[in-house]
Amino acid sequence: MQSFINVSPDSHFPIQNLPYGVFSTCDNTAHRVGVAIGDLILDLSVIAHLFSGPVLSSHQDVFRQPTLNGFMSLGNTAWKEARSRLQTLLSADSPILRDDQQLRAVAFVPQKSATMHLPAEIGDYTDFYSSIDHATNVGTMFRGKENALMPNWKYLPVGYHGRASSVVVSGTPIRRPNGQTRPKDDEPPTFGPCRLMDFELEMAFFVGPGNKLGETIPIQSAQDHIFGMVVMNDWSARDIQKWEYVPLGPFLAKNLGTTISPWVVTMEALAPFVVDNYVQDPKPFPYLQHSDKYTYDINLEVGIKPDGSDHTGVVCKSNFRYMYWTMKQQLAHHTITGCNVRPGDLMASGTISGPTEESFGSMLELSWRGSKTVDIGKNATRKFLQDGDEVIINGYCQGKGYRIGFGQCTGKVLPAHPI
Amino acid sequence: MQSFINVSPDSHFPIQNLPYGVFSTCDNTAHRVGVAIGDLILDLSVIAHLFSGPVLSSHQDVFRQPTLNGFMSLGNTAWKEARSRLQTLLSADSPILRDDQQLRAVAFVPQKSATMHLPAEIGDYTDFYSSIDHATNVGTMFRGKENALMPNWKYLPVGYHGRASSVVVSGTPIRRPNGQTRPKDDEPPTFGPCRLMDFELEMAFFVGPGNKLGETIPIQSAQDHIFGMVVMNDWSARDIQKWEYVPLGPFLAKNLGTTISPWVVTMEALAPFVVDNYVQDPKPFPYLQHSDKYTYDINLEVGIKPDGSDHTGVVCKSNFRYMYWTMKQQLAHHTITGCNVRPGDLMASGTISGPTEESFGSMLELSWRGSKTVDIGKNATRKFLQDGDEVIINGYCQGKGYRIGFGQCTGKVLPAHPI
Repeated sequence: MQSFINVSPDSHFPIQNLPYGVFSTCDNTAHRVGVAIGDLILDLSVIAHLFSGPVLSSHQDVFRQPTLNGFMSLGNTAWKEARSRLQTLLSADSPILRDDQQLRAVAFVPQKSATMHLPAEIGDYTDFYSSIDHATNVGTMFRGKENALMPNWKYLPVGYHGRASSVVVSGTPIRRPNGQTRPKDDEPPTFGPCRLMDFELEMAFFVGPGNKLGETIPIQSAQDHIFGMVVMNDWSARDIQKWEYVPLGPFLAKNLGTTISPWVVTMEALAPFVVDNYVQDPKPFPYLQHSDKYTYDINLEVGIKPDGSDHTGVVCKSNFRYMYWTMKQQLAHHTITGCNVRPGDLMASGTISGPTEESFGSMLELSWRGSKTVDIGKNATRKFLQDGDEVIINGYCQGKGYRIGFGQCTGKVLPAHPI
Repeated sequence: MQSFINVSPDSHFPIQNLPYGVFSTCDNTAHRVGVAIGDLILDLSVIAHLFSGPVLSSHQDVFRQPTLNGFMSLGNTAWKEARSRLQTLLSADSPILRDDQQLRAVAFVPQKSATMHLPAEIGDYTDFYSSIDHATNVGTMFRGKENALMPNWKYLPVGYHGRASSVVVSGTPIRRPNGQTRPKDDEPPTFGPCRLMDFELEMAFFVGPGNKLGETIPIQSAQDHIFGMVVMNDWSARDIQKWEYVPLGPFLAKNLGTTISPWVVTMEALAPFVVDNYVQDPKPFPYLQHSDKYTYDINLEVGIKPDGSDHTGVVCKSNFRYMYWTMKQQLAHHTITGCNVRPGDLMASGTISGPTEESFGSMLELSWRGSKTVDIGKNATRKFLQDGDEVIINGYCQGKGYRIGFGQCTGKVLPAHPI
């Protein structure tokens, strides 16, 4: 499949991808829905009238909205129809857009001249804890190897409610927080800037159609409620977290900012990269069982670029395939007690660590609680993040001659406000 | 102060109150903003043009919106202006509304013919844990008297992010959830209906103007960001909670539903009932210190009405004044790491228990983990909630000859779905 738009082989956005995002430009500050293709964005608000299929012909308004929530709510049939139509419209063989120079002039915007925004209004944001290597690493550090995993961990996808308001799009600077910490366990807490600022390499999915309060989303139909995925950095203030989190879980240590990549890659685009699920032992309860594959081979890479440097030191190479619990299991579990989810809800994986040291998805693990330094190149090392550090996360699936990518998920650490 | 609308002395809604809510009627299903007065609702969408003061004359649109978010975002000056104008308009001495029979005919709606809705679109919902008696009771049950309070409890208002989507308005039935529990600590978990269904007596406040990500709301100005309060029932599945909550906090045990009363009582209406703050020892960090009173004498009562019964057994009489942390402290703490809050965010107190047994705010405490029965009258007892039980929470401040009330916060327990 080839587009009439030129796409380089290492681009994240070939015609096989077609991720959705929300953007604006200097000369048109309205937020609008677009699709990434090569270095361009196809502005769907301009070509909404071309979605003439059985479902979308009566729902063209979703492409004229300032968020993707409307499109997400339409469900699988609409998503498939949109993708198929977009592949036709962008194909080298189809004259509709290719030969309409007037329409092309207004329908395509260079990515470099666009400002990206959050793809959806996020009603609720949930963060899971579904990487067995991450949970084991953290558990080992804090409770020793024998008790690394909590008793519930292999029975249910542990998760918690995060803060929706502080989810921001890639590029937003993140302020190092002030807060309470207790540096010495037998002394009173102190107040000041976070000393153990960290990233967490995560991915997240957007919910499509929701369910009613008191009803469930059975695992058999869970995939119909999953729209697509983004790469995520769940910024974490480790020292604040350690002091505050007992007994109700992480709170201020996480709501200082959560960054997501701007492009939502659909599950259909990811389908060719599905791999075997993690073998689960013990076998989960029936409401969490599914036999179809729903784990994906997505390469993930975290780099740190110090302030003023032109070098990005890669500190982590991981993969989404290391997940123990699948997204279908997460969603079925989330709704088993009748919790209602809504289109645009965001559900994150938790830190994605793999079995080897280079695949650990946080500085906490990479520096093993600060007990060793992590090389970031050019004679620089880190245990945790310093002011001015930019954290750059990349994610992509490698196809034959093409890449399905997520674009970058970046953020720079600003110094704490003086206290 | 007297209204031309007749208000009985035990009404929750005299002219001194004037709480805001969102309602609709059979013949006009549009959601609209109203104010409770006696047994009536004054429809603000109908009289929006009468808000002619310096701030509101250019913001009359907030009274024509389907939620209170717009009005909440305007801040203190607008709130004061609206209240003052409403007291004039409803006063027995003012002819503007009193003598305009035509306007009165469309502006007033009987409460009994209205359907109440959530007063605001809740972007994020946070639940604190700020009653020292509740925290001590729960801690004593699970860790013994010596270690009842966690080391952080007196240094910061412990809280966690709740689920915004499952916050519902009074009267919404709540389904008993199915979920994982582990009845015996040395055996594997089981799946089935929750056996320990509970209420939690809480109050919550709505946030007014918000702050930007990376900025704080200093405690000195926190009151400018607090719009008003509601009564709340944080339904809890105790057995599910116990199994799931380590280490990330409560999740599915709480997101099955959270009920709030429909009327938001403003801080100005509550001002006459302010009382001394709880004496805090140790003294909190400066960012949590304030010397003005911000604790309120609000009587709270929980009743249980079994299915088919005409008798409501009162099981708890508590008071909002028992709170250890003030709402100003909660908000200042919530934003100290730079978390952004938005108009319409909901922040709850946590279970409000007092020092005596009759003031315990949950069945967990009242039945002391199920070790004793609680009398609900007519020869019926409970340890936890049964199917068909309606939980009825009332809250009011007692003035001289009048009451400032919140209306009821009710919900009935539906049986679990068959598994």
